[in-house]
Amino acid sequence: MRFSAFFFDGASRAFHHRPTFSKLVVILAASGGGLVAYADSKSDHAIESSRVAPKKKVVVLGTGWAGTTFLKNLDSSLYDVQVVSPRNYFTFTPLLPSITCGTVEPRSIVEPIRRIIKKKGGEIKFWEAECFKIDPTSKKIHCRSDIGTNLDGNGEFLLDYDYLVIAIGARANTFNTPGVVEHCHFLKEVEDAQKIRRSVMDCFERASLPNLDAEERKRILHFVIVGGGPSGIEFAAELHDFVTEDLFKLYPMVQDLVKISVIEAGEHILTMFDKRITKFAEEKFQRDGIEVKTGLRVVEVADKNITMTHKSTEKMSVPYGMVVWSTGIGTRPVIMDFMKQIGQVNRRVLATDEWLRVHECNGVYALGDCATISQRKVMEDISAIFKVADKDNSGTLTVKEIQDVLDDICIRYPQVELYLKSKQMSDIVDLIMDSKGDVEKESVELDIEEFKRALANVDSQVKNLPATAQVAAQQGNYLAKCFNKMKDCEESPEGPLRMRESGRHHFRPFRYKHFGQFAPLGGEQTAAQLPGDWISIGHSTQWLWYSVYAS
Amino acid sequence: MRFSAFFFDGASRAFHHRPTFSKLVVILAASGGGLVAYADSKSDHAIESSRVAPKKKVVVLGTGWAGTTFLKNLDSSLYDVQVVSPRNYFTFTPLLPSITCGTVEPRSIVEPIRRIIKKKGGEIKFWEAECFKIDPTSKKIHCRSDIGTNLDGNGEFLLDYDYLVIAIGARANTFNTPGVVEHCHFLKEVEDAQKIRRSVMDCFERASLPNLDAEERKRILHFVIVGGGPSGIEFAAELHDFVTEDLFKLYPMVQDLVKISVIEAGEHILTMFDKRITKFAEEKFQRDGIEVKTGLRVVEVADKNITMTHKSTEKMSVPYGMVVWSTGIGTRPVIMDFMKQIGQVNRRVLATDEWLRVHECNGVYALGDCATISQRKVMEDISAIFKVADKDNSGTLTVKEIQDVLDDICIRYPQVELYLKSKQMSDIVDLIMDSKGDVEKESVELDIEEFKRALANVDSQVKNLPATAQVAAQQGNYLAKCFNKMKDCEESPEGPLRMRESGRHHFRPFRYKHFGQFAPLGGEQTAAQLPGDWISIGHSTQWLWYSVYAS
Repeated sequence: MRFSAFFFDGASRAFHHRPTFSKLVVILAASGGGLVAYADSKSDHAIESSRVAPKKKVVVLGTGWAGTTFLKNLDSSLYDVQVVSPRNYFTFTPLLPSITCGTVEPRSIVEPIRRIIKKKGGEIKFWEAECFKIDPTSKKIHCRSDIGTNLDGNGEFLLDYDYLVIAIGARANTFNTPGVVEHCHFLKEVEDAQKIRRSVMDCFERASLPNLDAEERKRILHFVIVGGGPSGIEFAAELHDFVTEDLFKLYPMVQDLVKISVIEAGEHILTMFDKRITKFAEEKFQRDGIEVKTGLRVVEVADKNITMTHKSTEKMSVPYGMVVWSTGIGTRPVIMDFMKQIGQVNRRVLATDEWLRVHECNGVYALGDCATISQRKVMEDISAIFKVADKDNSGTLTVKEIQDVLDDICIRYPQVELYLKSKQMSDIVDLIMDSKGDVEKESVELDIEEFKRALANVDSQVKNLPATAQVAAQQGNYLAKCFNKMKDCEESPEGPLRMRESGRHHFRPFRYKHFGQFAPLGGEQTAAQLPGDWISIGHSTQWLWYSVYAS
Repeated sequence: MRFSAFFFDGASRAFHHRPTFSKLVVILAASGGGLVAYADSKSDHAIESSRVAPKKKVVVLGTGWAGTTFLKNLDSSLYDVQVVSPRNYFTFTPLLPSITCGTVEPRSIVEPIRRIIKKKGGEIKFWEAECFKIDPTSKKIHCRSDIGTNLDGNGEFLLDYDYLVIAIGARANTFNTPGVVEHCHFLKEVEDAQKIRRSVMDCFERASLPNLDAEERKRILHFVIVGGGPSGIEFAAELHDFVTEDLFKLYPMVQDLVKISVIEAGEHILTMFDKRITKFAEEKFQRDGIEVKTGLRVVEVADKNITMTHKSTEKMSVPYGMVVWSTGIGTRPVIMDFMKQIGQVNRRVLATDEWLRVHECNGVYALGDCATISQRKVMEDISAIFKVADKDNSGTLTVKEIQDVLDDICIRYPQVELYLKSKQMSDIVDLIMDSKGDVEKESVELDIEEFKRALANVDSQVKNLPATAQVAAQQGNYLAKCFNKMKDCEESPEGPLRMRESGRHHFRPFRYKHFGQFAPLGGEQTAAQLPGDWISIGHSTQWLWYSVYAS
């Protein structure tokens, strides 16, 4: 190894000196099951400046919409921040379908996390690894490097946290359908999109080979999309454009044999959109020759056949060349395990409160596709609300008393506002008057039972947020801002009144602002459902859509 | 399968009708070992127009520089052309090293073969498959589809040819060194370059993980290039620029640990260039901190160590993170098998004559990296040349007689001209006068022995052409032009006099025109060796280099 030393000698001469690296102290610590390397990135601060209180450790899991937006908006000088993700880049997911057809280059839709970190001053640490276990009791996470296998030992390490931000998204949901993992493409990562692109081209090359009969060529050129949601529909539309505009010119001898099918379990595609959009999309697809088959549930995907059942009929089997599976999201194993630990069993995603805090789990936040906010119901807190409003402890509420806490109620329980809107009422007092009948406003007094009756139906307006990039990005932004003002808000809270305890919440709860939902339908046609029941279908809609994300 | 029929019903409605496909007749034929599908792409012509002589079938193997240049320049209306290659695109190989470092996008350096075919009118057929056996006796080739595995049967088929153009290039030469295939990267295809890029990034991510000691990080960040030829040196230079200009900014904590080494078995790098270029490159690399280790032969590549021997010393082992193997070209198995069949044993590449025809193999041409021209020696033909020149059968040659056949000799044996140039003579007569001593030019008469003596040393100038893109492209262009004028030249040959038979050769033999050789050395520095012993080193040289290829 004399030679080796000689070889390495040049390194320090060759490249500039930077002492940064020495700051990382690596300690070995015993943990359940064996030796695990342990990175304590804070120990240097402890030695250097024992007078100043050490910064709180924030660990961010994931570099998708939620994690990256959080990271970008966080004031990283306030915390000791570490990011863990198997992907060292952020992906602009709305353009993934465009990569499958070569409209856009992969490089154009990714942003390296280390570049974001550098822009923020470089203090943040990034580990390209996957968190495979969260231990909320000891406030540690277990990570494993995802890069190659020739890493010393098992490539595992532990990280401490004071605050944990879980934003690892979801995986494709196969509904445990046999053969899906083995035979289908997914459309979640850049690699998926690139694989789909290669696979489409391969199908055309394969169908052009000399040793096949026409049925076999037809099979190879049958492209099936399972799932009629926005991703599946956009991919089908992009594929149709790609095939008719580009591939037919290059493979004229097989163009009669190409077929694109969309299989949807529901009665229509794009059911989350307005009916007018669904109708427009279905008609456009029919004109384009894309077959939309609804009411079909896929029960098995074999090597060359996909089997499905219709409501009342027996099984049907269809030969295919390529299947893209796009039926919504499933739970990652680490979230499953974590939910079991904290007693959130039989759930698909982590439940958080309106401040994105995981229930019963100090210092842990969850956002994006791996979490959902369980909005507190008015009726659960109705006695507490009554008590808070009833300042003079008279046992009844006057209109004045109600109006005094009205803002806090509306902030804490957004369903109240939604309910009023649905009833075309301008004020909670209208609701009360409605329940009390023909009485003078000033003289109204409500007891607890009357108050309950007045608000009995507001919780019907509680809705889960969709698993979209828009929601994730807004949550990341919201949470970063909370972290940035954490100290200020501890001293002067800005949130609504606590109903079951005294004082105020530190922050206002997260509130989603819907900018509309978009569905590109091919041929430069995009349908959009905008806030306030507006519908837009046409050429320019797409640019509107990008601008929503760009903002 | 009722449902399936229903599913496929839409296809003909959905996409335009094109009858082209039906022209392809697929026949099953028994062949040695089992059933093999058999594509007779000519049968339709035979039926449609039995009066007209059917076009000759040209099969082109390979879509590299030689095959693609041939295809682009061929008048494809004259032949029934089929192209077989596992890659349905041409790669601009000089830019492969730029892909490894992300300077250039893969898409920018590839050209789909089907697009080239379309530009030429679409008559040419392309099969994405690999030829695994050439049968020159029955004039058939055996092909196997390379796409996926879910092709019916074994995916094999047979093609007939009248003319076979072999242009399948070479593979990386490992010299059977243990561990090279398993652990090293190569740099021949776009996929190789993309893998290298990912691997470089992975090394930096892996070296940044928390659970490693400094030695391990150093190992991971040791990039080794084996082979000091133009490809290896260019890659080393590109990697250095990528690392210092981009990656150091993103991974400041590990930059002291990075090392790039070039290992060369010879005494210098870039030995095919002028010594001034070699010296410049070695000095530039030293300044850049790239370690150049010469006189070292790699004997084994293990998981994390590369072992080599120096002339007089024992084995040395060096830890590494990534190795790129770039030590020249090796023979593809199908060429090896073909050479065995035609008696070209113990050769590295196919031997052809000066018209790129494979020796003793009717209708088979070979060009590019899989072939080399064995230039006919003057001394082998000296009696025949004498006989042709001695028109009056006097047994002696006058200067006039020699001058009459001089052009033909120089065309047939380019070494004569090279020899004269090396001796700074303007004419073969000078050579003769030189050998005859002080005699009047007009009165010179040479007998066969004197003629032999005069030309005794010219064959020392016979040189093999290098395995470069320039040579391959010129050969492809040359051969296409020969094919385009094959009919004309049969009637009025344009080649030199045949020495051992009567008449003229149909075509002039292939003659390589050297436009210079280029070696990008990083930091926008490129060294160039131009024809006529000119050397250029500097910034603008690179554009000169691209322009050579662009032409």
